[in-house]
Amino acid sequence: MNAPHSRASGLPVDRPSSSSLLLVGTGLIGGSFALAARAQGLFDRVIGTDSNPEALSTACSLGIVERPETSIEPTGVCIATPVSQIAEQVADAAMRYPGVPIFDVGSVKTMVVDSLRNDGAVPPHFVPCHPIAGSEKVGARAARADLFRGRSVIITPVEETDPETVATVESWWRRIGAIVASHDPGAHDRIIAATSHLPHLVAFALMEVLEGLDEKAIEAYIGDGFRDLSRVAASDPTIWSDILQANRDATLGLAKQLGTRLVIDDNKAALRRRLAKARDLRVRLDG
Amino acid sequence: MNAPHSRASGLPVDRPSSSSLLLVGTGLIGGSFALAARAQGLFDRVIGTDSNPEALSTACSLGIVERPETSIEPTGVCIATPVSQIAEQVADAAMRYPGVPIFDVGSVKTMVVDSLRNDGAVPPHFVPCHPIAGSEKVGARAARADLFRGRSVIITPVEETDPETVATVESWWRRIGAIVASHDPGAHDRIIAATSHLPHLVAFALMEVLEGLDEKAIEAYIGDGFRDLSRVAASDPTIWSDILQANRDATLGLAKQLGTRLVIDDNKAALRRRLAKARDLRVRLDG
Repeated sequence: MNAPHSRASGLPVDRPSSSSLLLVGTGLIGGSFALAARAQGLFDRVIGTDSNPEALSTACSLGIVERPETSIEPTGVCIATPVSQIAEQVADAAMRYPGVPIFDVGSVKTMVVDSLRNDGAVPPHFVPCHPIAGSEKVGARAARADLFRGRSVIITPVEETDPETVATVESWWRRIGAIVASHDPGAHDRIIAATSHLPHLVAFALMEVLEGLDEKAIEAYIGDGFRDLSRVAASDPTIWSDILQANRDATLGLAKQLGTRLVIDDNKAALRRRLAKARDLRVRLDG
Repeated sequence: MNAPHSRASGLPVDRPSSSSLLLVGTGLIGGSFALAARAQGLFDRVIGTDSNPEALSTACSLGIVERPETSIEPTGVCIATPVSQIAEQVADAAMRYPGVPIFDVGSVKTMVVDSLRNDGAVPPHFVPCHPIAGSEKVGARAARADLFRGRSVIITPVEETDPETVATVESWWRRIGAIVASHDPGAHDRIIAATSHLPHLVAFALMEVLEGLDEKAIEAYIGDGFRDLSRVAASDPTIWSDILQANRDATLGLAKQLGTRLVIDDNKAALRRRLAKARDLRVRLDG
């Protein structure tokens, strides 16, 4: 840490801040970035805003953020709202704080970039980011300073993006322990549809299939496999309705492919080969 | 333990056994039952057979079973083979050891009972059982004496089944810590299709969808959610091709229902309500 801090709030005291992060959206991901950034001394202070006053109060009472003072101009802006609000928040921050690095943490990229472009321009100091971390938990109470340690962050700069800002934002992620990879927004959205958005849709849909059965009877049949597989169905409905709508085309394209695989071959050897091939990929990806 | 045991093998020495379990199939589930049964003193010795000589050697070298001596008549028989072999093994054991309690541990019940009935009769001393425990691991090396502790065992006796044998087999499961529930075979197969067989098919199918993408690129996108959800895709292809074929109708019926749910509603409030309802069921089932 670069500055003396009060133990109670973890916030700087006795001198004006030289650098500060503005966190827009004080949930699990934003709160974890704030904790990690503070722990690494990336910013002297973290100020926060949230459209949900309760969420902001929680993050303040946990010492993760301070309420914003209008006199302070941030030296970095992290947009950590649900994906449907990202483009608007990026445009707003770019207008208020020209030249200040802005990044988001949303799991859909094309829609954000397209939306900014359609409304005028993609701000050059905006770096679209997606940390592959999180959980079915929500809110600042679940935030952890080590959430991004050893995790990937996919950045998806576009032609409008300023390379120096990319380097700055990349360095922030690296300093909190993340591994940065760069893809174009379309590639990101197709791959994340396969590894996250379709799996979430499937998990929610599996629970809908169960809704037709006797809940009391089901309980005796729940094992570890089901528990693991359905864990993501406990994810936040507001966040996920946003994500699924924002990456609808890629997700539904893969859902159609998945549908054609939900068959059970008559030929046992053929079925075994299919399952073995799928198993081998799972084992490789986990390795 | 009721008898003196050699430390090396864990097997009785110096006196003829008064009771012994015959384990047919020496993998994870059978091996775990053997370990648990021995730990609770349900049998003085455990003898094993396996169509795979390597699996039997492993189980012997681990001290989980002894190789069978033809002179020994078991006092209990556990059929722990892949499901496609269960009916044949039950019929064989019933012929060799009339009156001796026989149970299986397979995850499909209707096919076994129907197959026995079609070939003559369901032996009265056979109790169909399905412990809801296991993992994507296979083989006796993964066996654990506490695998069934606190877990459900669904038994599916039919009209031919002898009630006293049911009571005996139930008492074995209870003594190793399991919670016994009784359902008819058809109900069992419908519910387990929803909580296990369809989820496994879905997990394998998700991996097949991923096969179309750049594997190197995918790796950066793999998070905990994906890892949890796809864990069961690492399950054994031989065991699972058997199970899926054995419970094909129930599984494919539910797969069709699932297919109709792989949609993303245009109306955000409607989508959020769907996801919230699914999430609520997941949270209740986990509670």
